[in-house]
Amino acid sequence: MVDVVVVGAGLSGLVCARRLREAGAEIVVLEARDRVGGRVVNEPIAPGQVVEMGGQWVGPSHTEIRRVAAEVGVDTFPTYGEGKHLFAHAGRTTQFGGDIPARMPFGLVDFRIAQARLERLARHIDLGDPASTPRSRRHDTLTVETWIRRHMHTRSGRNLMRLMVKAVLATEPSELSLLHWLFYIASGGGLNSLVRADGGYQQDRFVGGSQEIALRLADDLGERVHLSAPVRRIEHTPEGVRVHTDTTTYDADAVVIAVPPHLLTTIEFCPALPATRNQLSVRMPPGMVTKFVAVYDEPFWRATGLSGQATLTSGPIGVTFDNSPPGGSPGALVAFALGEDARALENLDADERRAAVLERLAELFGPSAAEPTQFHERCWAREQWTRGGYAGIFGPGGWTSFGKILGRSHGRLFWASAETVVHAHGSMDAAVSAGERAAVEALATCLAEVPASR
Amino acid sequence: MVDVVVVGAGLSGLVCARRLREAGAEIVVLEARDRVGGRVVNEPIAPGQVVEMGGQWVGPSHTEIRRVAAEVGVDTFPTYGEGKHLFAHAGRTTQFGGDIPARMPFGLVDFRIAQARLERLARHIDLGDPASTPRSRRHDTLTVETWIRRHMHTRSGRNLMRLMVKAVLATEPSELSLLHWLFYIASGGGLNSLVRADGGYQQDRFVGGSQEIALRLADDLGERVHLSAPVRRIEHTPEGVRVHTDTTTYDADAVVIAVPPHLLTTIEFCPALPATRNQLSVRMPPGMVTKFVAVYDEPFWRATGLSGQATLTSGPIGVTFDNSPPGGSPGALVAFALGEDARALENLDADERRAAVLERLAELFGPSAAEPTQFHERCWAREQWTRGGYAGIFGPGGWTSFGKILGRSHGRLFWASAETVVHAHGSMDAAVSAGERAAVEALATCLAEVPASR
Repeated sequence: MVDVVVVGAGLSGLVCARRLREAGAEIVVLEARDRVGGRVVNEPIAPGQVVEMGGQWVGPSHTEIRRVAAEVGVDTFPTYGEGKHLFAHAGRTTQFGGDIPARMPFGLVDFRIAQARLERLARHIDLGDPASTPRSRRHDTLTVETWIRRHMHTRSGRNLMRLMVKAVLATEPSELSLLHWLFYIASGGGLNSLVRADGGYQQDRFVGGSQEIALRLADDLGERVHLSAPVRRIEHTPEGVRVHTDTTTYDADAVVIAVPPHLLTTIEFCPALPATRNQLSVRMPPGMVTKFVAVYDEPFWRATGLSGQATLTSGPIGVTFDNSPPGGSPGALVAFALGEDARALENLDADERRAAVLERLAELFGPSAAEPTQFHERCWAREQWTRGGYAGIFGPGGWTSFGKILGRSHGRLFWASAETVVHAHGSMDAAVSAGERAAVEALATCLAEVPASR
Repeated sequence: MVDVVVVGAGLSGLVCARRLREAGAEIVVLEARDRVGGRVVNEPIAPGQVVEMGGQWVGPSHTEIRRVAAEVGVDTFPTYGEGKHLFAHAGRTTQFGGDIPARMPFGLVDFRIAQARLERLARHIDLGDPASTPRSRRHDTLTVETWIRRHMHTRSGRNLMRLMVKAVLATEPSELSLLHWLFYIASGGGLNSLVRADGGYQQDRFVGGSQEIALRLADDLGERVHLSAPVRRIEHTPEGVRVHTDTTTYDADAVVIAVPPHLLTTIEFCPALPATRNQLSVRMPPGMVTKFVAVYDEPFWRATGLSGQATLTSGPIGVTFDNSPPGGSPGALVAFALGEDARALENLDADERRAAVLERLAELFGPSAAEPTQFHERCWAREQWTRGGYAGIFGPGGWTSFGKILGRSHGRLFWASAETVVHAHGSMDAAVSAGERAAVEALATCLAEVPASR
């Protein structure tokens, strides 16, 4: 018997649980995996040093996750970005400063015009209900790839836009609704904000890695967090909820389901959820991403004036960053394989993947890059409690059909997860906002149970 | 201890189990629901009379399901189609003969040209690997809605094409990859074959309802079929498989998972499935359909020269058929709400839905239609062991990324379901083919276990 069961010990669930505890509620957090953090996870690379293999960066507008990090004593530090960035395109690698490679001026003009056009369209979107206008519903019938082919005119400009989509959402432009892309641009404060380090989504990192926040939140919750406890079934009535794992049953006033919409299908609900919620659960898949981290004794690229940041318009990796811990020792480069590139890499074995990624890193940063002291990979689609990354996205029609119900509670069932929040949709910041919103909702249900005399 | 566990007692799983038994294998069928049939289900409407609330029709090319039906002694009878059909468009209802309404000649020309164009494109598709050419991969970046807007020029022609897509696949053209539409047209032998009764997919029905086949298959399997036994977890190693329900554990040589790809997520696999399979499980959602059946003392529309078949280009229902049992007593009309129309109806309560559907039927067939003796509805998205209908479909990018692995086995895990078969993809016929293919695959694995001396 508890007041609230929280399903999922990602950032959303843990923050939700914390707020519920602060309000005096008895809670339990049930996590399917053998660790906390969900889509946020650290990997040790040296004594006391980690790299992040999941969500890791925060921008200046990510005030919610920053607040929670501060609460549990986790500091931020700036993403390393000094020196020249690299741009690999059409068989050549060039260096540049600023956000966008200055090479191929025609392509760049094409890209800039398209960006301005997208941002203009994005400004008209009602973030609270993106499919509210005939025009936005029209945009929801198109893929981003269709828009690119229709409105962009150079091969290099198109490829740069495709790469931006892949880097920002880990999905192919052909899989994505134009409306989702516009919504996401609006939600993130413009395309520059989404792709930039300085002043943008990649500005800062957390000391000790982003999972450190989850670990500390879980520490504070203590034995209330149960690992390796997948929820199989939830019975819900107007009187209460009953949550079943393989070994235990919990009765509660409310349950917060802090997993992305597509993982609702892992739980049997009795009675079944409404039709539209069931449909949403199969219509908001995550993208596809594999994160690779190569570790070196030192960040050797810094000495040659390189930032470690690279943008590649042909695979198998699309983006790299310097991912060294604060202080720069050891050195670490992170590389992202995105969308179809990541799926293609899954046809190789681990050694072949490593060779393919290191070969590309060596082309960018020199032969030293081919000899890391450690090599880590994390393909989020291999994990059945995630099935992809970064977050849930909508193909054409998704916002039109399901946009209004994303975060809408159902009786004593409340939804958290980064997909249910408008601001910085899909980010760690949204995960926190969602957890806090769901905590408030669940508390209202618990309070309604308290006899007036108490 | 059995030879093979079959997960799912739909047509695919039951046929698979039957073939395995015939080969002498010990099997068990585990079904999550409290009934067999999966997406095929009967509803009684009079003593000894039923209507089908799920998959129901078979065309002349559906030889596999016909063979199985004959095996268990279930006959077919022709779909009633004598008399004039109705076409409701732009506020007017007209009568017509043949397949396609003859009204609005410009729109019809537009539609016919588009149909010819689609069928020409469809002829170039390699059914075994639909995304095998650059052109088909290009088609996989477009929604059908984009194609309609680009290649069709009249409002009425476009609306008719949209309705065809909805009637055939229960999905909005904006949600669907053009490549899936082309594949489906090819898989079904042309658009006419898909939408026609005579000579097409809706030609015949089963005496006693389509579920009768499943019921008889299950009868023959006897106590080997376990209902209300959702599979929660499957452990699989090179040595064998272990399948867990809430109460029982089965060890076997192989497991056939006879559920659509999107329901794989309801099962925990240990170890997890490969990344691409995990991604497929969240990328092939079913459409959205609610089936309504109004029952009358007699099929009164027949007396006025109407077939009971109607086509409506505006909701809430899109298509109707005479769905009376053989002999025509009682009379029954079936009406389909499709895609967004079906989702919109879910915002109403049952009485309001009934009123909305009957109002439309009365407009079509006269005031008698408003007074049925019984009214049945089945929204397949309300059922969590289905989540939509008719079958799994691909949005843009789906075939490109996952077409090759749909039916590809993984170690001792074999996939059945109507989505894994090329011919008559998604139909009852495909369900049978898939079950038989999976049975053969599983048997090969079992045979490999038999010592050579035996």
